[in-house]
Amino acid sequence: MLGAVLYGPRDVRFEERDIPRIMKPTDAIIRISATCVCGSDLWPYRGIQPIAQPTPMGHEYCGIVEEVGNAVTSVKPGQFVIGSFFASDNSCSNCQVGYQSSCQHAEFIGTAQASVLRVPLADGTLVPTPAVPSDDLIPSLLTLSDVMGTGWFAADAASVKPGSTVVVVGDGAVGLLGVLSSKQMGAGRIIAMSRHASREGAAHIKELTNGIGADSVLECVGTQESMLQAISTSRKGGYVSYVGVPHGVELKGEQLFFAHVHLHGGPAPVRRYLPEMIELVWNRKINPGKVFDLTLSLDQVAEGYRAMDERRAIKTLLRP
Amino acid sequence: MLGAVLYGPRDVRFEERDIPRIMKPTDAIIRISATCVCGSDLWPYRGIQPIAQPTPMGHEYCGIVEEVGNAVTSVKPGQFVIGSFFASDNSCSNCQVGYQSSCQHAEFIGTAQASVLRVPLADGTLVPTPAVPSDDLIPSLLTLSDVMGTGWFAADAASVKPGSTVVVVGDGAVGLLGVLSSKQMGAGRIIAMSRHASREGAAHIKELTNGIGADSVLECVGTQESMLQAISTSRKGGYVSYVGVPHGVELKGEQLFFAHVHLHGGPAPVRRYLPEMIELVWNRKINPGKVFDLTLSLDQVAEGYRAMDERRAIKTLLRP
Repeated sequence: MLGAVLYGPRDVRFEERDIPRIMKPTDAIIRISATCVCGSDLWPYRGIQPIAQPTPMGHEYCGIVEEVGNAVTSVKPGQFVIGSFFASDNSCSNCQVGYQSSCQHAEFIGTAQASVLRVPLADGTLVPTPAVPSDDLIPSLLTLSDVMGTGWFAADAASVKPGSTVVVVGDGAVGLLGVLSSKQMGAGRIIAMSRHASREGAAHIKELTNGIGADSVLECVGTQESMLQAISTSRKGGYVSYVGVPHGVELKGEQLFFAHVHLHGGPAPVRRYLPEMIELVWNRKINPGKVFDLTLSLDQVAEGYRAMDERRAIKTLLRP
Repeated sequence: MLGAVLYGPRDVRFEERDIPRIMKPTDAIIRISATCVCGSDLWPYRGIQPIAQPTPMGHEYCGIVEEVGNAVTSVKPGQFVIGSFFASDNSCSNCQVGYQSSCQHAEFIGTAQASVLRVPLADGTLVPTPAVPSDDLIPSLLTLSDVMGTGWFAADAASVKPGSTVVVVGDGAVGLLGVLSSKQMGAGRIIAMSRHASREGAAHIKELTNGIGADSVLECVGTQESMLQAISTSRKGGYVSYVGVPHGVELKGEQLFFAHVHLHGGPAPVRRYLPEMIELVWNRKINPGKVFDLTLSLDQVAEGYRAMDERRAIKTLLRP
């Protein structure tokens, strides 16, 4: 089987890897219908987050179940399924309160840029669609695995409600789907921010909001600058969410204290939202697949990374 | 008029100060029935938060209105009133969403350890009791000005609900009233923590909560250690509040990210809670005045500070 392997900075190779097999009775094997490159893949790709050895890549996936372990009861071969980038048992106490990405048995899925994938804890992780989807739905269904689920969590964690004034910091794929999610949750006004000098941006938002600041701010980048930007654009008592793994972020207690904001974030518990999001995509209420502005065949994965690294593409879809 | 003035580390003097007078038509002058020393007064008292010049002290107060400015309509001479340590107009957009301590016209009240006090924005700041209270109610009513209001905000910001498992980090006056507030809000279980090695304490809480952590954690100290303690004792998706001005606190984004907690805090918007808290005290449903374990006459204010600094007292009540 062929799949993507990162060897070092800007060195992704498409090469032979072992075919995944059932290793535990709770596993499933799925044939990938589509996978993609995540903004977070660029951290190791750029060498900012060094890797110790050649590393298979990819954590966003959807596809057809090929085989399931003996203990799997809720999905079966032939079904089209989507799962989060964190496998979860969906039954432990953390899962029960909706934090499946902090499942007590969570396993990161990191080998999805390939034609076949092993998914642990299949019963807790995978959600089947009502039927095998038509081809045009696949990009949108794929986004639910991470990028759309993360945008959705960003909006939910920032407490977006009907009528809310929302600021989305970051106009990458997650930010764009944070906009879509906020709209779906009824936001009255959505302001998207790209790169601004921190004070300048915050001052501009204050102007746009009668000097008050936004009700909800979605931080969709993960840098110190974007985090401070987000905090300073919130109104007093407002809600700031952050969903990108922070890199080099340090928050001063006193600054946070007088900002008077609510702060919530972390790895998106995508599994919590999958049934609702699948229904929205299935009924064509939302079309998050529009976030892919480059589609390549899986064997062109290296070009998929390059295009995103060089900002020629926002997000690359890969079809085996 | 005599009042407390801080001259430098551990040097509080009780000395002649100008009698406060109406300066703006929105002011009120009140004769203090009781005031007290706050844990936060110990930061400058100990020299950790240096002062530039001799500084009048005190921000917790209740008493009888003596005089009001022309524009004041909601309180009148003879009424017994309580106000927050931040004067607020209670009408700006920040006040309207319940963050009166971030009022756009907020003024810190810092001269309350005296016999007479000027309160700006009297209409927005002061709440009268149903009648002049009997003497035994005064300690409890005084706490509503800050320490009880802050404990209450800690519990509210940590989303304490009926049945919640609550951890209170810090067993000072705010922590104790955080316990009282949590109980009043229906907490199913409340665990109070004093000083522990951070990991040891968190591990102990995990043991006490089936390995899960607490639903709500009230951070009532304001140090790096207590903040990390609080974050690490929360369950995934739990709520951590912080209500003491942080001193030297720095939070790493990545740590916060994977902790998956909700974080909210800041200077307690006491004004939001005053009507409800006054009713509870008035009807003797709660007795937060028990937090005072030392009562002195106002002229002994220096001893009041000393006793708290040396941990001989948790909180000192001062009666003019």
